[in-house]
Amino acid sequence: MKKIFAPLIGCVILVASQLQAQSVDDKLKSLGIELAPPAKSLANYVKSVRTGNLVFLSGHVSSRPDGTGITGKLGKDLATEQGYEAAKLCAIALLSSLKAEIGDLNKVKRVVKVLGMVNSAPEYIEQSKVMNGCSDLLVNLFGDKGRHARSAVGMAALPSNYAVEVEMVVEIE
Amino acid sequence: MKKIFAPLIGCVILVASQLQAQSVDDKLKSLGIELAPPAKSLANYVKSVRTGNLVFLSGHVSSRPDGTGITGKLGKDLATEQGYEAAKLCAIALLSSLKAEIGDLNKVKRVVKVLGMVNSAPEYIEQSKVMNGCSDLLVNLFGDKGRHARSAVGMAALPSNYAVEVEMVVEIE
Amino acid sequence: MKKIFAPLIGCVILVASQLQAQSVDDKLKSLGIELAPPAKSLANYVKSVRTGNLVFLSGHVSSRPDGTGITGKLGKDLATEQGYEAAKLCAIALLSSLKAEIGDLNKVKRVVKVLGMVNSAPEYIEQSKVMNGCSDLLVNLFGDKGRHARSAVGMAALPSNYAVEVEMVVEIE
Repeated sequence: MKKIFAPLIGCVILVASQLQAQSVDDKLKSLGIELAPPAKSLANYVKSVRTGNLVFLSGHVSSRPDGTGITGKLGKDLATEQGYEAAKLCAIALLSSLKAEIGDLNKVKRVVKVLGMVNSAPEYIEQSKVMNGCSDLLVNLFGDKGRHARSAVGMAALPSNYAVEVEMVVEIE
Repeated sequence: MKKIFAPLIGCVILVASQLQAQSVDDKLKSLGIELAPPAKSLANYVKSVRTGNLVFLSGHVSSRPDGTGITGKLGKDLATEQGYEAAKLCAIALLSSLKAEIGDLNKVKRVVKVLGMVNSAPEYIEQSKVMNGCSDLLVNLFGDKGRHARSAVGMAALPSNYAVEVEMVVEIE
Repeated sequence: MKKIFAPLIGCVILVASQLQAQSVDDKLKSLGIELAPPAKSLANYVKSVRTGNLVFLSGHVSSRPDGTGITGKLGKDLATEQGYEAAKLCAIALLSSLKAEIGDLNKVKRVVKVLGMVNSAPEYIEQSKVMNGCSDLLVNLFGDKGRHARSAVGMAALPSNYAVEVEMVVEIE
């Protein structure tokens, strides 16, 4: 009996892991999000570095692969809802780089830490609501594995005047 | 002789480890600090994530469990001494979340890294003195295990106008 | 034959590893950079903490061991070229502390992550160009091992009005 069941169990595990394997990409598709291969860095840094089972990702700004993006300061040029969209763009850019690093987003064991840096006028105080645009997407995609430690803070300025820059630490299997 | 001493040594180790085990809580008590269970996060992030033997803690602001806190910008609304107290509040909030994560603060092997983000007017330059309010408490409680790598920097703005936000990485046993 | 070659191979490995061992120090010398022992911290934090094979380094400001340094805000007091030099000073200070921690810079397996915090006027947007002063030196010294994940952002203010503060995570062998 054991000899009969062993391959069967193997098959079930294979099928189950493939169902699981499709889920993040499927969810991205159902959300209408396409991950473009990240642009190559022009300077002496890279989009991500893996050390052990942790991936440290560079700060990714609120830009789209087509070169457009969301720029300006929250509380001066942009409303919180626009900041929310900007933080979502950062998350999409981070996921593109993460996929390029690990090959398959289903290898994500846990999103560990997110540092959300919001381009802010001195009196703007809704950085947390802005960063929900990033956090909500991560939890939509990864479920409880996507729940991360987070800081959301207001910057005096960001490169090229992007609205948001987010860096991330991810644990992979 | 060996047979007689073995249980004795065991007892000594047990007593010693219990004395050690009480020390952080005792020190907190002697400093008049009570760790309240952290409020549940309302958004899609959590107070802390453990990966391996590292705990990454979210940015914790200078608020008290009763809802009061220290708000305002250093160099505009607040003096450095008030910032010191604000950074101490951040440390207490971080310790509450850390205790909720690991159960017992005596499991702390080393406070690894602290990022102290001080709500600053553009000309304010005493962020280091402010962050000593956090660092001093950590070393008071944990001794050499509490000595951490640190950055202290000035932010344009912080969520809900809190005076200080601090995030932390801790190594546990 | 095996018995003859074994010590020979050992010699070759020894010589090769020594050539490798000299390279970072040699490169520093050829760049005219001297690493002074870091000043002792006056407060309850330290320059670096090692956990496992990761070293977390404190934020290091754009100061020289002789007490001089580069201060002021980018976009107000300083031009981008001066910021580039300031970020390079941060890198040198970081390397001094790293050498004090691990003894030999050839033990660096990978520079994992750099967070570059640039003292910025609200309209200054060239933080990336400033931080290249740090990144370029790291890659000059360590080659591909020096290519790191990076964030470059604009701060409202920095301690003692230094122009740049950089923190770093390094993986060692």
